[in-house]
Amino acid sequence: MRVKITVAYDGTDFVGWQVQDNGRSVQSEIEKAVFKITGEKVRVTGSGRTDAGVHAAGQVAHFDTSSSVPACRFYKALNTVLPPDVKVTASEEISARFNACTHAKRKTYTYSIYLSETENPLYERYSVRIDPDIDVERMKKAAEIFRGEHDFAAFRASGGAAKTTVRTIYSLDIIEESGKIKFVVCGNGFLYNMVRIICGALVAAGKEKLTTEEIEKAFKTGKRPALIKTLPAKGLCLESAEYI
Amino acid sequence: MRVKITVAYDGTDFVGWQVQDNGRSVQSEIEKAVFKITGEKVRVTGSGRTDAGVHAAGQVAHFDTSSSVPACRFYKALNTVLPPDVKVTASEEISARFNACTHAKRKTYTYSIYLSETENPLYERYSVRIDPDIDVERMKKAAEIFRGEHDFAAFRASGGAAKTTVRTIYSLDIIEESGKIKFVVCGNGFLYNMVRIICGALVAAGKEKLTTEEIEKAFKTGKRPALIKTLPAKGLCLESAEYI
Repeated sequence: MRVKITVAYDGTDFVGWQVQDNGRSVQSEIEKAVFKITGEKVRVTGSGRTDAGVHAAGQVAHFDTSSSVPACRFYKALNTVLPPDVKVTASEEISARFNACTHAKRKTYTYSIYLSETENPLYERYSVRIDPDIDVERMKKAAEIFRGEHDFAAFRASGGAAKTTVRTIYSLDIIEESGKIKFVVCGNGFLYNMVRIICGALVAAGKEKLTTEEIEKAFKTGKRPALIKTLPAKGLCLESAEYI
Repeated sequence: MRVKITVAYDGTDFVGWQVQDNGRSVQSEIEKAVFKITGEKVRVTGSGRTDAGVHAAGQVAHFDTSSSVPACRFYKALNTVLPPDVKVTASEEISARFNACTHAKRKTYTYSIYLSETENPLYERYSVRIDPDIDVERMKKAAEIFRGEHDFAAFRASGGAAKTTVRTIYSLDIIEESGKIKFVVCGNGFLYNMVRIICGALVAAGKEKLTTEEIEKAFKTGKRPALIKTLPAKGLCLESAEYI
């Protein structure tokens, strides 16, 4: 049977989702856990990779097993052998035609910042400090430009394997609450580092270092202005992958 | 001059606030930082100890220095040499009669739990998992009993050095939001493990394992019912100390 799982992880001590030679990956931890439970060497396919340091609340993945453990209880079995920084929050049997990677229709990421002149150790693990002199209204104005279908060539890092750089952003919201700002972005897919670069652009806009005209120009030319920084991985969290 | 500082720390990797032989303490990290900045060996006095694993957003402390660094800028200097898990968020000059420990009038702690059948790695560092079948209204009802001036002998661990076990709880609120519950408790002082034991009682009440009558009886007899657990340190955070 094919099993669909939902996975939460603290990305701090991982080299990322994908199996790599140079350290712990989320994928390999889950594959090891499946082996411990079933004795089977399986490939666990995720909705997509997440980079080193990126967290997930709702990564989705699938694998095939001939185990007699009921799919709906698989998550409990896996959690008994998984390390504390990765846990499976749900599991269910799904059609053998389902593919967690190629069938993903929408993904939602959050990026978290906190406004403070000094680092706060309680916030540093899952968000990034930004100086408080930032104009949220300007960020919201800039966010409007990113919504919809665009060629995001200017807003990705090199190294991705994407065939096209056209993507659709269904929503990009900015939620402000007591000194914390959360960017919530939902799209049909994201290029390499795209969310972290878009959020870097929004922060630059909020700091009045970047105008909406410069963002529009970047879309037209496909070239990213040098002052748009890729924000650190630790502020990013994959919230969900949807299959409709 | 005497300098008052406000300190935030992630308690995970500390043996607690107080200097001890067996590991890193917050107090010694700050004393080392003051030494690096001023060359002076000072004693940093906190509003009170926090135990191993307990966090702080607003611990208050004082120390004396003859440094020429202006008090209002001391926090910035200290932060350049402090480790990532402890930072000073504010500093100011204060009367030499001020004592961060003996003059503290009120302290506010939060205790955080999240409701889930499975562990969530993103919540495990600063909160404690509780099964979702919990009755928040019953917890709120039980919380009423703790408010006010009482002899809290039944709600402390042995080992404290307190002269009296009478304390006043000014407020004890239960804030519920999307699967997370935060207990916010403000009092004139707390006995050893008192907040963690009170929150353990509230959870037991919410799980219908403890009646309000049993809590009232514990106050009268000074004996704690065995089923009231001391909740883990990691859910506890010292939010502030007030001096009025």
